Amino acid sequence: MAETTNAAELHELGAAECLSLISPGGVGRVAFNGSDGPTILPVNYRVIDGAIVFRTRAGGAMDEDLRTGIEDLEIKIAFEVDEIDVIRHEGWSVLVQGPVHHVADDEVRGVADPGVQAWAGGTRDHYVRIIPQRITGRRIQAL
Amino acid sequence: MAETTNAAELHELGAAECLSLISPGGVGRVAFNGSDGPTILPVNYRVIDGAIVFRTRAGGAMDEDLRTGIEDLEIKIAFEVDEIDVIRHEGWSVLVQGPVHHVADDEVRGVADPGVQAWAGGTRDHYVRIIPQRITGRRIQAL
Repeated sequence: MAETTNAAELHELGAAECLSLISPGGVGRVAFNGSDGPTILPVNYRVIDGAIVFRTRAGGAMDEDLRTGIEDLEIKIAFEVDEIDVIRHEGWSVLVQGPVHHVADDEVRGVADPGVQAWAGGTRDHYVRIIPQRITGRRIQAL
Repeated sequence: MAETTNAAELHELGAAECLSLISPGGVGRVAFNGSDGPTILPVNYRVIDGAIVFRTRAGGAMDEDLRTGIEDLEIKIAFEVDEIDVIRHEGWSVLVQGPVHHVADDEVRGVADPGVQAWAGGTRDHYVRIIPQRITGRRIQAL
């Protein structure tokens, strides 16, 4: 699985290792086709029962775009987390792909704890869940 | 433009401020529709003449997906840079949307300097340029 290059070694990571890397939660990025084209936005997330859960602001740009997609059909989005040391040229990145769902009101209590704050703070009352269908990742290590 | 929330203030940033934030280069993330669906990958980038330039590994997953898209038609991708302080709950993110082009061989000399290293290191000999069509950003400041 290792691929040797001039300055660094690239390893593909297995799904279990990827899940373990992202399980502490924190800041990730979601990508979806928004009304202005492909869109990437940072979110504060947690991993709950193997799913990625994050909040969006009701009525905000991401909510409107995601809501349209979700209500039309089951759309697949991308979620990415990385930790990259620019100086040492080392790090990892994990990509989760899967369908996105709004968390139903009667489920919100289960995910609405202080650990899932929207990174923009304030009132963000739409909870969104990504069910991972494909989890891939890479680790780069300087030689 | 300021939107007051419980714990933080969200400001939309103008295009000029966004460009100034991302102009030092570093690690950003690109999103595009890959063969396995929406995909986000980290890249090491520079801003050259107002365009985002990064390298991909020839024959790598991103190159194949992007190449297919680029050769079929002019595809639009998303590029994001952020700097988020999780502890202080402050930071900014910038989103660039625009068409992506392979840099022609005779232009490579102009962009192929050590400042545009692929973050995975090694030999990455496809240079890709995103021409910004839309630049948006947000800054979050704790109150």
